[in-house]
Parts: sequence; structure tokens; C-alpha cells
Amino acid sequence: MERLRTTEIPAHVGERVRVAGWLHSLRQLGGITFLVIRDGWGLVQAVAETSDEIVPLSEGACGVESVIAVEGTVVSEAQAPGGAELHNLCLEVISPVTEPPPITLNKRKISANIVTLLDSAVITNRHPTRRAIFRLMAGVMDSFRTVLQARAFTEIQTPRIVAAATESGANVFALDYFGRQAYLAQSPQFYKQIMVGVFERVFEVGPVFRAEPHDTTRHLNEYVSLDVEMGFIENHFTLMDLLRDVIAYILNTLEEHYSTELTLLGVEMPAILRQIPQIHFSEAQEYIFRRHGVDVRGEPDLSPQDERWLGEWARQEFTSDFLFVTGYPMRKRPFYTHPDPQRPEYSNSFDLLFRGTELVTGGQRLHRYEEYIAALERAKLPLEPFAYYLEAFKYGMPPHGGFAIGSERLLMQLLGAQNVKLMATFPRDLNRLVP
Amino acid sequence: MERLRTTEIPAHVGERVRVAGWLHSLRQLGGITFLVIRDGWGLVQAVAETSDEIVPLSEGACGVESVIAVEGTVVSEAQAPGGAELHNLCLEVISPVTEPPPITLNKRKISANIVTLLDSAVITNRHPTRRAIFRLMAGVMDSFRTVLQARAFTEIQTPRIVAAATESGANVFALDYFGRQAYLAQSPQFYKQIMVGVFERVFEVGPVFRAEPHDTTRHLNEYVSLDVEMGFIENHFTLMDLLRDVIAYILNTLEEHYSTELTLLGVEMPAILRQIPQIHFSEAQEYIFRRHGVDVRGEPDLSPQDERWLGEWARQEFTSDFLFVTGYPMRKRPFYTHPDPQRPEYSNSFDLLFRGTELVTGGQRLHRYEEYIAALERAKLPLEPFAYYLEAFKYGMPPHGGFAIGSERLLMQLLGAQNVKLMATFPRDLNRLVP
Repeated sequence: MERLRTTEIPAHVGERVRVAGWLHSLRQLGGITFLVIRDGWGLVQAVAETSDEIVPLSEGACGVESVIAVEGTVVSEAQAPGGAELHNLCLEVISPVTEPPPITLNKRKISANIVTLLDSAVITNRHPTRRAIFRLMAGVMDSFRTVLQARAFTEIQTPRIVAAATESGANVFALDYFGRQAYLAQSPQFYKQIMVGVFERVFEVGPVFRAEPHDTTRHLNEYVSLDVEMGFIENHFTLMDLLRDVIAYILNTLEEHYSTELTLLGVEMPAILRQIPQIHFSEAQEYIFRRHGVDVRGEPDLSPQDERWLGEWARQEFTSDFLFVTGYPMRKRPFYTHPDPQRPEYSNSFDLLFRGTELVTGGQRLHRYEEYIAALERAKLPLEPFAYYLEAFKYGMPPHGGFAIGSERLLMQLLGAQNVKLMATFPRDLNRLVP
Repeated sequence: MERLRTTEIPAHVGERVRVAGWLHSLRQLGGITFLVIRDGWGLVQAVAETSDEIVPLSEGACGVESVIAVEGTVVSEAQAPGGAELHNLCLEVISPVTEPPPITLNKRKISANIVTLLDSAVITNRHPTRRAIFRLMAGVMDSFRTVLQARAFTEIQTPRIVAAATESGANVFALDYFGRQAYLAQSPQFYKQIMVGVFERVFEVGPVFRAEPHDTTRHLNEYVSLDVEMGFIENHFTLMDLLRDVIAYILNTLEEHYSTELTLLGVEMPAILRQIPQIHFSEAQEYIFRRHGVDVRGEPDLSPQDERWLGEWARQEFTSDFLFVTGYPMRKRPFYTHPDPQRPEYSNSFDLLFRGTELVTGGQRLHRYEEYIAALERAKLPLEPFAYYLEAFKYGMPPHGGFAIGSERLLMQLLGAQNVKLMATFPRDLNRLVP
């Protein structure tokens, strides 16, 4: 008999069917045994009214997480998950498990603390709430690609092993490459810019690596970056319009196609306005001074506290979970940043704050060769390591820019999770290289 | 005036339009100047009948690859690319280029040798034939994901920085991870298997790293692997059926949506039969002995020459560009390989040959904990580095297996290219870390 997925069962009431999966839970009540089977897609309950039906389980002393196949008759039952359950069982054990798993998987929530949960990720990732997170991640990646393809962006793959660090020598993992020093890419920044010279509009989904030697709830040492770069822009506002639409499309897709996961995780979907409110960096600092009495006006960047205050303001003032901060000072931005032609101490850049945390950084880049030479000199950087990158600008580049979304951070903020590490299947941090 | 893409021009005959892009070529003929503008999608010809129209170019001594915008009237012209061209030009220079690029981009083929071509990849990637390759690559990745999503596979992202090498300590890049020895993933093998315990069916598109210290035309030190792993299989034949459908879907998608690129590159699309012919490893060796008089029957693997002979045989015997070789000897396969229950010296594994070269390797894996303990002992491998991986099997895993397609190699074979390095935007090899 062909196997059905658990999610297909409710459509087969009255039929004899076969499912297979993991024994998610096993309860005895009176003489009746309630089994819940979990497969790759959902759960189904199976009810054994006689002990004969579960002989293969009891003979092998099989416990939860055993892999089993169950034949049964589908019976409508409002109480059961999905509204149907299996009766008159015929059971087969495929992989017996006799020892209980280190983490209980069949309670609504995982009760372990985060360290235990991540140490046992191989098992805890099987929990329905963990699965829901990773399904949402698949939805984020997929909708990101779809919305960009619809706007004629081409997907690219660029190298992760690179000869020079992107922005600075700090926070970069070094490796030996056949006797030469090489690094792991902190971002595909240079390559996506170069590829604007090829396709104008490109995007890339891939791992990036940051050797930041501190353990925070907002950082991973390896994460999946959703990168975009676009040519022939007017300025950074072109990119902000695009970013708004990309985020809106991702959120819509999740709402439409991942409602089970969103409900299970109790996600409150954010409102995204047709026009995301925006504030210039200098005005943001003025606002903080006026409203909160903290004078941050000399600072070159916003602190996490500043971002939270601005997030609250956007919420109250515009009923918006999102806020663009534009025009960060040039002095803290990387050398390829394009200045604001009107106020050259500020840049044509932006951050997108989501619920008071930086989610996306982006901006316009320089596009003329002479500008790069001058910018590298100002930054006191040698030209030689950037020679290949500079070639793109020597031979014609249009005004362009882009942004990068941290996929795990997007999900963390969306879910209101306490730690970004919980968004990765097998996170990498200062102390964690296994599993 | 809003900018149009070059590919949109033929639909606007009689209208005044604006395009922008790179000055692909510039020719004078009599008093007439022919400009070809290349944007991210295609080419369009613009004809200046007076020298006034090109004043901005001549004033700046602008040559090819200058970034320009051109306004003109669309005129139907059978000789022009796309069947239309621009007249009565109004021209604007956005980024002037006065020096000719190191590689000629406006001839039908790139005339440079492969070393020069790759050294100048930042520029040569702009050539229409190079663009066509990378567009096809985007099509491969996209159709791979689409066909698997349609079969209820979930996309995953697993770490590239790992604590232990997947298969052996050889050919692995080492790096310092906050004072600990770590490695770059040679494949997501262990993680995709673990994730079968979570979703049953998973796939991943991502970079993998092989520190192979030799320079061949078939290997890259970093490449994009298309990985699949599936639970509740019967045996490796379940996977071969899936793989056939995945490859067929990819080829169909390219034929349907990338005909411009396939035509430009002169690609001869392969025939893929409903049932790809297959031959057992031992019979393949017997055939080679009978037909070619070379006795390879004691060998644990097929040589490139063996694969070419088998490819020819499949072509002649079945008119097939594809051939499955099944049942490779256990002794050369990794420890997690599932033996053939009937002939335990052979494995439930396969390679897919495409035009006489190995394209995909796959097979059924062990799925019971005790089998893994025994297999690691047989392979004289310590248990400790695999402890996290073994946990998956300790707590219930179904029969499963998978395969990995090298995306660059798929494209190389499809295009009949001489070197796999030409399939990557910025390839990494023994000597090449830049660009």
C-alpha cells in the first residue's frame, strides 16, 4: 500500500491508509493506546483499542522516536490533530528506539534552556516549533528570490574564499590556501558590485562569516546573507523603494503560505506601510536628545538603545514596525560609500530598523574609478589588494547600490525570539562548532 | 523619460524611448556612426546620422564600455539585433571610459586564452557568451529548487565551518576558529542526513570546498553543490528515479526559458529517456574487458577512460547521453554507505554519467545506530568526532539516501566546455585566489 503523508489523512476518511514516521508520543489510557506519528509534514493520531495491535512496539520495548509504519482506517474525530485519526492498526517497526531522547519532543514547547537545546540540535530540531522556524526560513529564502526574479534580477554565486578582507582586516577568519593566506568572505560586497557590471541587477543567497570574538544574542559567526545589488539607480532612495517591496513580498508570502507555522509560533505579523517612514540620521539624533534627554549628536552611529527609541517612535507616530534611518555619517561607513552630494559629511546610505533593531544595511556606492582611488587614499588603504575590484570601475560602472538582509535576524525579529542562534539549524558562535 | 530595457525596444517601434547601458561597440561607416548599447539583458543598435548626435562621446574621447544613456526613436530594421534600432539620438555619458578594456568584448567569441580570460574575469564576465553561461547557471539552480519543492522537499542551510572533515582528513581546508581547529565543509553530507530526521526530504544549494592540490579541467576547489537527501526510500533505485526527474526538469526548464542563451552558446541539448539506462559496476567492468580488452575487473572504481567508454556504449546502445552505473564496491565508498543486501561487497550506490563523465554520486546510507558503530570500527575511525552525527541514528532514522550534483560540472558537460573553471563567475583553483 502506498504511503500517505500525515497531512493527507483527513481527506481519506473511511479508507484504509498507510503512514510512516516517528513515534512522536505514546500514551496508555484505560486499555487504549494513543500513538501520535510525526512525519516530515505533520502529525496524525492512531488509536489502538487492543494490545494486539501494538505487539511489535511492546515486543521491541520501542519508545518515542522509533521509526514506524502504521496501516489503519481513517476515522473522523474532531479532537484529533487534523480532525481525523487511525483505527484498527497494523504496525511495523522500521528503526526501534529504546532509550528516551535527551530532550522531550512531544510537549508543546521545548523546556530545555538554550544551551542544552543547541547542544542537542540534532534532536531538538525535530520539535514542531523548531521545524516551523526552519520552514519559515525556507519561505524567506524562496520569496526573496521570487520577488527579485520578477524584477529581472539574476541570481549569482560568488566565492567564499577570498584573497582580501572586504572592509577591514578585523573580524575575518583566515585560512591557509595552498600555502597562501586567504580569508572567508564577510560579505559578497565586492563581487556583487562587479557583477552589476555584468547583469546590472543581481542577488545572492549564501553563507558569510564574521570572526567577531564576542557572544551576543544578535550575532552569529556564520549566517545566511540575502544580498542585492542594482545598477542605474537614482540614489539610495531607489534602493529603499525596492527593499520595501522585497520585505512586503516576503511577509505576504509567509502569511499566505505558512499560516500553520506562524500560528504555531504565535507570530504577530508586522504592518508594512506602502511608504515606510524615514528619518535622517541627524534628525534621529536630535529627536533622541529632545525626547529622551540623551545627547548622542556627536556619535557616528546609533547604539542599540538609540535604535529601540527610534523603533518606539515609529510605532507611536506612524503605527509602523519599520523605520528607515538615512544619511549615516561618512566617517563610519566603508570606503566605497557614496556621499550625499548636498551634505558630503553624510552618506547616501540607510539602515532599515525592524521593531527597533537594525535589520538591513544598504546604500549607494561610488561608481567612478577616480572616486575609488581618492576614497582608498583617504581611508589609508593600499590599492594593490583591491586591484581586481578597481578594474570594474576603470571600465565603466553605472550609479549603483544595494543592501544585505541577515536572514536569521529577519526571522528573529519577526518571531520576537530572544536569540538569533535559535534561528539557525546548527549555529556557529564563539564557543559552538558542534553540532 | 523612463528607461526601457534593450529587450523591450522592438515592441516600441515609432516611439521615442530611452535606454542606458554600456557602449558595447562603436563603428564609423561613411558619415554614419553605429553604436551598440548593452544593458543587463541584451543589445540594441543606435544609429547617429550626424556627428552632432555623438558630441558627448567625442568630446570626452569616450570609448567602448563607457556607461551611457541614449534617447532615440525606435525604427524597425531587420538587420539590427532584435529587429529594431534607434535613430535621432540624444546621448548622455554617465561614466566615461577612455582606455580600451584588456579583453575585446564585442566580438562574437572571446579570443583570449583561458588564463587571460580568468585573470580578467571582472571584465570578461561582461561578454555575452559569459553572461549566457551565468544565466544558465541561475536557471539550473532555480529549476533544481522548483522541482524539489514540488515534491515536498524543504530547503535547508547548514554550516560551512565544521569541526570534523566529512569523509577523511585529506583534501580539507583547515582554519583557526577562535583558537580551535576547524574545517570548511567538503559537503553538507552529515547535516543533510541529520535533517532527514527533521523534514524527511531536504535539499540545499551552497558552496563546498575541496583542498585538492592538483590543477585539472574537471575540478574546482570551491564549487556550488546541489544536494538532496530523502527519507523512507526503498533503496537507491528510489533516488535514481528522483534524480532522473530532477535532471529532466532542469533540462526542460532551460529549453523552455533559456533558448537565447542555449542558441548563443550552440548547446546541443541531450536526450533524457523516461528510464535512464543502467548497468551494475561489475557488469560495466566485464563490458570494458570484452569490448576494449582492458582488464579493470579488480579495480574498486572507474577511471575517466572507463567512464568515457561506458558513455559511448550508452550513446550507441540506447541513444542516451546519460547512464547510471550502480553498485560500486563497498571498499572505496565512505563509511555511511549502505551495502547491497544480496551482495554485501557491493553498495546500494550509483553514479550518473553524463556524456561519459561522472556528474552525480549518490546512494543509500546506513540508518541504524549499530550499523554506524560497526562501520566506523571497520573503517578504523574514532567515534568521538562523529558523536553528534550518531545521535541522529540513536534516536530513530528511516532508510534514506541522497545525491549531490556539481552545478558547474553539469553546465560544463551540457555546454561541451573544455574546462569547468569557465563555468564559475570567479573560480578558485590551486593557483587562483583572485579575482
